[in-house]
Amino acid sequence: MELQISNVSTISLAKEFGTPLYVYDQQKIIQRINNLKEAFPNAQICYAIKANSNHSILKLIAQQGLGVDCSNRFELELAEKAGFNLTNSVFTSTNPSDTDLKKALSTNILMNLDHISIFQRLKKIGLPKRISFRINPGFGKGKFPEIDVGGKDSKFGMSEELATECYHLAKESGIEHFGIHMMTGSCILDEAYFEKLILTMESIAENIENKVGIEFEWMDIGGGIGVPYESFENHLNLKSVGERIKHSKKSNAILVIEPGRYIVAESGTLLTTVTTIKENFVGVDAGMTTLIRPALYGAYHPIVLANNIYLEETETLTVVGPICESTDCFAKDRPLPKIKEGDILAIQIAGAYGFTMSSQYNGQPRPAEVIVSNGCYSLIRKRETTEDLVKNEL
Amino acid sequence: MELQISNVSTISLAKEFGTPLYVYDQQKIIQRINNLKEAFPNAQICYAIKANSNHSILKLIAQQGLGVDCSNRFELELAEKAGFNLTNSVFTSTNPSDTDLKKALSTNILMNLDHISIFQRLKKIGLPKRISFRINPGFGKGKFPEIDVGGKDSKFGMSEELATECYHLAKESGIEHFGIHMMTGSCILDEAYFEKLILTMESIAENIENKVGIEFEWMDIGGGIGVPYESFENHLNLKSVGERIKHSKKSNAILVIEPGRYIVAESGTLLTTVTTIKENFVGVDAGMTTLIRPALYGAYHPIVLANNIYLEETETLTVVGPICESTDCFAKDRPLPKIKEGDILAIQIAGAYGFTMSSQYNGQPRPAEVIVSNGCYSLIRKRETTEDLVKNEL
Repeated sequence: MELQISNVSTISLAKEFGTPLYVYDQQKIIQRINNLKEAFPNAQICYAIKANSNHSILKLIAQQGLGVDCSNRFELELAEKAGFNLTNSVFTSTNPSDTDLKKALSTNILMNLDHISIFQRLKKIGLPKRISFRINPGFGKGKFPEIDVGGKDSKFGMSEELATECYHLAKESGIEHFGIHMMTGSCILDEAYFEKLILTMESIAENIENKVGIEFEWMDIGGGIGVPYESFENHLNLKSVGERIKHSKKSNAILVIEPGRYIVAESGTLLTTVTTIKENFVGVDAGMTTLIRPALYGAYHPIVLANNIYLEETETLTVVGPICESTDCFAKDRPLPKIKEGDILAIQIAGAYGFTMSSQYNGQPRPAEVIVSNGCYSLIRKRETTEDLVKNEL
Repeated sequence: MELQISNVSTISLAKEFGTPLYVYDQQKIIQRINNLKEAFPNAQICYAIKANSNHSILKLIAQQGLGVDCSNRFELELAEKAGFNLTNSVFTSTNPSDTDLKKALSTNILMNLDHISIFQRLKKIGLPKRISFRINPGFGKGKFPEIDVGGKDSKFGMSEELATECYHLAKESGIEHFGIHMMTGSCILDEAYFEKLILTMESIAENIENKVGIEFEWMDIGGGIGVPYESFENHLNLKSVGERIKHSKKSNAILVIEPGRYIVAESGTLLTTVTTIKENFVGVDAGMTTLIRPALYGAYHPIVLANNIYLEETETLTVVGPICESTDCFAKDRPLPKIKEGDILAIQIAGAYGFTMSSQYNGQPRPAEVIVSNGCYSLIRKRETTEDLVKNEL
């Protein structure tokens, strides 16, 4: 039995487009968006474009009425091309250049700045109608320390005191519409975390509103909604998260959320061909260049034998790529069925931070991408060739 | 006083080409190659193309008469374009596809295979005139565990026993010319390591020669020659390494070495503009997308204030990029001079595994590359634009 994605055989896709190949399930993306709309009915949902920025995927998400979360001028351009409404979107950057600020200003997007020095630079360029500042409440959470974006040592956000000064300055400058932003974690599967976040945010927002004499119109809790990568993990009960946030949130400000991973991660599968069997090593044609999460974070991705999904797990295997680095490893000592050369493996939950983080290291052209929906499929990015490795070289 | 590279002001380069910008010092590359030629006068020196594969740099290295070390068909194509003589080169792959093997076979390059299963696949495609197998002697060494490419759990190489079987099989198949390969580490600054490697190799080679009845014509110790990234580290005494190897090596086989980092690392500097000062954080326009070594390995790179190199270190600063990940950090709590917005920082020793590992994550077009030589400079890769982010999208 072959692995099917939305009624399309992964083996046929591998044959037609070659491997490594990213395959996305369109229905899963739409379903995740619907889950979010249901759990957060009054929220402004802004897709974190960095999770997966393929134009076709962006267009699909924009068509569902979502806003977008961008962090620099290039992401803003990609979002514009895909048809996102930037007035319902957020610009949450870190260390933006003046050019980034200029571009963001020109789009009327809600700008989240994370330091007073950035506001001072922005003032020289021009003033937006509305502004938001990013608070670091002093705590953070991440599945890996690399993606914890809060806490004392974080480069993101600022203290309540400094933010208060920022809002004062913004008000004095003539800005009349305000938001507040606080994203401190990534890939979180703990309901209580979101409640803690909103409670902290409410309390900080109230303090600032009282001190500065403003009222927040947007309250942005960032992203951080996790997906279960490992078998012992469970999906967040999104509805319950939504209800707990609704229950804790006293302010009338519009709730803004910036999910990225939640929308696209589970839709994506990386297909790869087994080139080499070498004792307990299974060598495949995808590498850390194709999907860097295992090398970068030690991230776990489920792996199934796509050409025979019911074969029993009888071996303990290590799945490695063709890159000349020891860290080029997708799974170490993983229980897997007997695998032979020519088999196709499906590395799952690869739709977020997969292709977007890919590189051409070790002379690797980047893979093709295909989207699948109810028995139909289409190529949404052509496979790179050697020409693409040298494209801008002179 | 501005930082100069080969009599060119880095500040002028930053102004002309923008930042982030990779700058390479041509003289340093040539000098490192000459050091290698002097220390290993009779060796076949094969540049490890993965360290830096810009066409202009490859051409420069090929012009110095070096061979190349490639690991897949794409790197072979890049090497051919740059004018390397592939008959004086090595193909050291891990988990190659049949297409990789076909391409390698067609070039008459010396193929290093690292498992019997790969030789069996190769036999079906065709037989080379000469062959080499990669031994894993059971030990390894790397500056970081991620780049240790030997030892019990390594995906690289095979046991002496299995290699013996491979040579038997190759001899039976009619192959008459043999090499032996053993690379177990990376970025090594310990002379004794290379002596240990050659002694181990000699002993394994002798065993195999006796058992199989062949004589090795090439003895490839791989790469692994380190460079000092940190101030407490010193350059290897290459001459002494060369002499110790010469002294320990009894075999008449041609010594093959595969240096990559040693040739290009110190030639490269990444120039980046300070966009943001945020308490002790210095935000720059380069990120983990431009140079991933600090994020991936925790690697250290020296950083200097390019527009004022004599300014005293009076601060303790953390240098971070514009990427929305906590791991996007070039230096944590580093003694640095007082830095202000608009300053240019030079992230040094960035010529190896810099641009080659770069990505477009978080909507980042990749930087330009410039080569500099005695007061002259030329652009060797144009800066990417938003168009390059979507180039193969449909």
